[in-house]
Order: sequence, then C-alpha cells, then structure tokens
Amino acid sequence: MTLAPPPAARVGDSLASVATPSLMIDLDAFDANLAAMTAFAARHGVALRPHAKAHKSSEIAKRQVEAGAVGVCCQKLSEAYPFAAAGIASIHVSNEFVGADKLAMAVELAAHVRLSVCVDALPQVLALGIAAARAGVTIDVLPEVDAGQHRCGVTSEDALLALVDGIAAQNALRFAGIQAYHGGIQHVADWNARKTAAGHAAEIAASYVRALDARGVRCGIVTGGGTGTVEFDAASGVYTEVQPGSYLFMDGDYGGLGWGGELRWRHSLFVLSTVMSATRPGMAVCDVGLKGLAVDSGLPRSALWLDGSAEPALTYIAANDEHGMLQAQGMPEEIFTALVGERLRLPPGHCDPTVNLYDQYVCYRGERVADIWPIDARGLSR
Amino acid sequence: MTLAPPPAARVGDSLASVATPSLMIDLDAFDANLAAMTAFAARHGVALRPHAKAHKSSEIAKRQVEAGAVGVCCQKLSEAYPFAAAGIASIHVSNEFVGADKLAMAVELAAHVRLSVCVDALPQVLALGIAAARAGVTIDVLPEVDAGQHRCGVTSEDALLALVDGIAAQNALRFAGIQAYHGGIQHVADWNARKTAAGHAAEIAASYVRALDARGVRCGIVTGGGTGTVEFDAASGVYTEVQPGSYLFMDGDYGGLGWGGELRWRHSLFVLSTVMSATRPGMAVCDVGLKGLAVDSGLPRSALWLDGSAEPALTYIAANDEHGMLQAQGMPEEIFTALVGERLRLPPGHCDPTVNLYDQYVCYRGERVADIWPIDARGLSR
Repeated sequence: MTLAPPPAARVGDSLASVATPSLMIDLDAFDANLAAMTAFAARHGVALRPHAKAHKSSEIAKRQVEAGAVGVCCQKLSEAYPFAAAGIASIHVSNEFVGADKLAMAVELAAHVRLSVCVDALPQVLALGIAAARAGVTIDVLPEVDAGQHRCGVTSEDALLALVDGIAAQNALRFAGIQAYHGGIQHVADWNARKTAAGHAAEIAASYVRALDARGVRCGIVTGGGTGTVEFDAASGVYTEVQPGSYLFMDGDYGGLGWGGELRWRHSLFVLSTVMSATRPGMAVCDVGLKGLAVDSGLPRSALWLDGSAEPALTYIAANDEHGMLQAQGMPEEIFTALVGERLRLPPGHCDPTVNLYDQYVCYRGERVADIWPIDARGLSR
Repeated sequence: MTLAPPPAARVGDSLASVATPSLMIDLDAFDANLAAMTAFAARHGVALRPHAKAHKSSEIAKRQVEAGAVGVCCQKLSEAYPFAAAGIASIHVSNEFVGADKLAMAVELAAHVRLSVCVDALPQVLALGIAAARAGVTIDVLPEVDAGQHRCGVTSEDALLALVDGIAAQNALRFAGIQAYHGGIQHVADWNARKTAAGHAAEIAASYVRALDARGVRCGIVTGGGTGTVEFDAASGVYTEVQPGSYLFMDGDYGGLGWGGELRWRHSLFVLSTVMSATRPGMAVCDVGLKGLAVDSGLPRSALWLDGSAEPALTYIAANDEHGMLQAQGMPEEIFTALVGERLRLPPGHCDPTVNLYDQYVCYRGERVADIWPIDARGLSR
C-alpha cells in the first residue's frame, strides 16, 4: 500500500493553495540578500564562505558558490555529506569533533572535497593525522582560538603553537590558518556596541596571528564572523574569510538588531500557517507550534497577513506543540469566528533551528510557487 | 556518486560505538512504562488511545496496540499517514483543521482506517461532510469542548449542540462523542493541585455530556487527558478514553512533577552525546545543542554519565545550535582536558519536540543496541 501525504506544493501553484505549515522563501528578498553579501565580500577583499548550517540545502549552497562563495562551512561532518554529494568542492567544518565515527566521516569526505576542520586539543590532531594517513587523504586543519566566547578554542598562544607543531608532525594534515568565531557578539543589539565587541574579537585573533608570525609560521586563513559582525570583520584587516549564514533569510533575532552600516537585509523566510480555530473573542489558534517554529530566540514577532499588509492583525503569543496562540488587537468580536481558514506568514525568531524542522523550502515569487528546494542536510547533526 | 553519512548504529553494537548525537531508548524502562499504562487503563476500564505525537513512530504504535491500546491519536492529518500505512486500524486526529489539502488527507485516510477527527465550528463540519460524501467514506466526528485551557473547543452547550446537529445533517459523518483536553494542567507540579485541576476539567466535560443527554443525544466517547492527569481522568467516571503520550519516555518537565498516586514512570529517552572540547577549567562542550534537544521546557536537568552514575559530574547550562555548554561541579582542574571524548546521556526537557528532531530511535538493552526504530512521522506537521 502506497499511503503517504500528498506534496505540500507544486511549482506553479498559487500561494493560496500551498498546504500549511510550510517553510517559505520569498525569492526576491532571498536573491537581494545573496547578491548583497556577495558584492560586499568582494568589495572588501575577503573570501565569502557562507555557513550552510543556516540553510542546510545543497540547492542554496550551489547558488552561493555560483555567485562567488569559495565554498561553504558546515557545523557537523554528517551535515557536509549532501553538500559534498552535490559537488560543493570546498567545505570547512567549523567545529571540533572526536570519536572513530567522526574520523571515518572526515576521511571519507576528504576523499571527495577539499576539507578543512577545526581542532582545539592535541589528541584531536593526532587521531585525525593517523586516520587521514591511513586513508591516504590530506586534510586542512585550522586550530580554533577562543575569540572571547569562552566556548571552544585554545586560550593561549602556547596552546596554539603546540597544535601547529602537532599538525606539522602529521604528513596527512596541513596547517591552513585559524578560526576565531564569537557567536555571542553576533546578537548584540546596538550597532556601535556590536562594532566594539567585534573589534575586541578581531584583536584577539590578530594577537594569535602575530604569535605565529613571531615563530615564522604563516597564518594563511583567518576565518570567522557571522551575519551580525560581518561588516566589521571584513573591514578589520584581520579576517581573510567570513562565515555568515543567516543573512540569506534573516529572522526575528537578527531583524531586531540595529543596522547602522552599509548592510541591510530583507526577511525572506516565513512559515506559512492557517488559522484553524477561533472560538473565543480576542484569540485565534493557528496550525504552527513548537514543531514548526524554533522558539529559543523568541516567538514570531508578528503575524503578517499573506497579502503583505503592514499592520499585523494578530500577534503570536504562545507556542504549544502543534498550536500557535494568536491574540487580536482591536478586532471587532463578530469578525472573529470568520478568521478560521485565514492564512498568515510567520517570521521565525531563529532561522537555523526552524529550518532544521522542515524537509523542503517552498520558494515563491509574487503569488506563485517558483521552486521547491530540499533541505537535504536537515537533521544531520553528527 | 553515493555519498551519505554512515548509519549511527547497528543492532548488536555496543553502546560505546553508537555515533553521537543519537536519540536512545532504554528498552527495559520503555517496556515497564508501556506495561504499566496498559495495565492501569485496563484496571480502570477506560480505553487507552496513546498519543502518537509523542513518539511519531509506527514501530512504537504497533507495540502499543499489541499491548491493548484501541488505536492511537495523531495531532495532524499528515502525521497519521505512517500509522495508517503500518496497519494501525483506528486513528483519532485530536485537532481541528481547515482547507482543501486537509480535507483531501482526511478522506484518503478514512478510506484506509477508522478515522475520527475534532471540530469546533460549523464550517469545518460542513466542509468535512461534503468531502467525505464525495469520497464515499464515513468519518467519526468528536466536537472538542474547551475544558478550561481556552485554546480550541466550543465554549457553550448551544455551540456543541449546533455542531451535533450539523454532524447529524451529514450522511458521511457520525457523531462519536466529545474531546475534552486541557494541556496546561498536565504540567501542574503539585500532585494534589493537579488532581483538583483535573477534577475541574472533568466536571466541565461532564456538564457537556449532561447537556447532550438532556437532548437525548448519547455521547459514546469522552476522550482526553494526558500523562499528567491520566490517573485522575481514568478514575473520574467521565472519560471513557485517555490519550497519554509522554508516559513511554518521560522528560525533564514531567519528571519534575509530583507523583503522589499509583503511577510511576521511568526515564527511557535520552540523547547520547560526546564531549568534544574542554579548553577552559570548569567548562566543557558537548556535541548536542538546539538542533538535537528541544529547550522550550528547559535544558536537560543533568548530564548523566553513560555508566549510570547517580551523581552528575556535569550540568548542561546552555544550548547553542550544535554545542551544549557543560559546567563541572567540584572537579579538579587537571581532569578537565581529559573529558574530551567522554560520553553522556541527556534527558530532554520536553520529549515531543526533541523526538521531532531525529529520524530514528537507537534502542538498547544493557550495553547493546537491540533495535533501530524509524521515527517515520518526524516532521509531518500538516
């Protein structure tokens, strides 16, 4: 028996017939964001290596590389597979890993793409060097330095130099530079405060580069930065490569920041939802909750009507598993029950984990579905 | 080119070789929970219709029905498909829905299983009746009444009676009873307070049943309740059917409640994780963050060692996308860097949305992988 849910949408469908919940990309906004970041990186002479953890889609990665990106970042080794399979030739795994299963993935990937990875401890270097040599592959290694986030990364120049020596001792590994990423400062709301914080992180990175220089070690790549700090990182003279991801989509969190510089981003990512119950004055219930919207960085800040009306008629106030609670502002009581069946666009508070809940993007231009892109790295967290 | 991540685990593997992150089921605890709820419902003479939104796996649903469940609940129509395809013969969609795509799924499902659904407005009844008649299927309908949650459900006896009349006017629909579910009270921490709240909800349900009786309408089924209130619902004399889901797994939220009655549940669900960085005294970083753990109901309350040690050595204090921050308590500094590669079991704060992040359960007994169960309804939120 073939019994499976019908497709949520087909190319050419009108938006009004797309099944909900669906994760939607407004291609006009998406294209504008893609072009703006590509041009920005080129203008500042930094390599653009967008973070694929944000979109988890090889269709999007291909478009980024076609536009001028040098490759992509992945956060996990398993996440890199669909991008490697789709022909993305250069992948940086911007994270540490340990264990036999991870080493097996790293050497398999390195047989297909130019692979670089992060380390922050000598045992990781030794294990990777042995595995790569045994597999007959070469892997670029970028030690991570703690740029102030106090998460991963070495915390001293001595520790970095020990890693560089460890890498040099492994024939199958190549020291390619360092990673200096500070996730926390991406989300500093005030533009000037974010600029200052990014400057501190860049100065930490620069001090590590100087320590390497003093030892005669050339640091080819300094990679890091995200959507929130990319304009400061690109202008810092320290970073040679930037890793923004969310710029393609934006989300409630990034959308709420101050943007005082030359960069502006459009919201291109929405969850399309339907009001499915409204039995009580002032409240309605839509069909998207925790399983269709990540809420770690807040709820959708408003419920925009599909027609693009600027004034949200409903505010999303609580997420249950599969229910979204909507509060009406100044809406006559008699209108209320008529809301059932109305459709709304919800901008996620945090794009990355929201994307990770869906298997596909329904891409649209104007009022028509223009493309369906698989989220082929969805769930690949190993 | 076939390039895909290797399987996370195979049956017979030792737990030490399972790739992380993986979602794990301790089958001894799982079996105990399954048996306890089945016996409890039988003892109290209520039908057990477990909620499949908690586990999203037809393998688990089959085991529940084999043990004595009358069928399962689903929260969405698309979610019901894998269960219907796996031969679960009776499915209740415990939720309202609107739109042509939803009606098409309802009538397709009803051609394969005994399907019941919820409604709380007349237009839903009319649309469903027309669609079912056109497709030549019959659908059981259970109007939802608001049992105090103020989410979905009718709020007056008149509204309920209007729905019952509306259902009676449709040849393809059958009035089967009512649903009275209050999600909020499932999580009241104090056992006596929860008992009182469940009593209020049951009394609301009873008043609707009396209103139907007074009109000569027999209310066959009163369905509702969850893991938090099932013992009160089963004893209420009002509910004929209970819908618990989380009892199979437990989670940080339910585990933190008071359990003053006859029911006790074991934690059977864990995310297996590996420490992948520890460069700073007192802190370590593991490989599970927001994309492997739902945090809407709090972080994992502790990081248990895989060896089952009762005293957690590390506390999970923050989730980034793919990083979990762990704080050490009273651990000598020199031990710290040696933590890299250590594996830990994280009990999710909220099981339902955590399950929705994974494609399979790695089931184990003792120290061996005993089974792999697909989470075949993962992501099916339409």
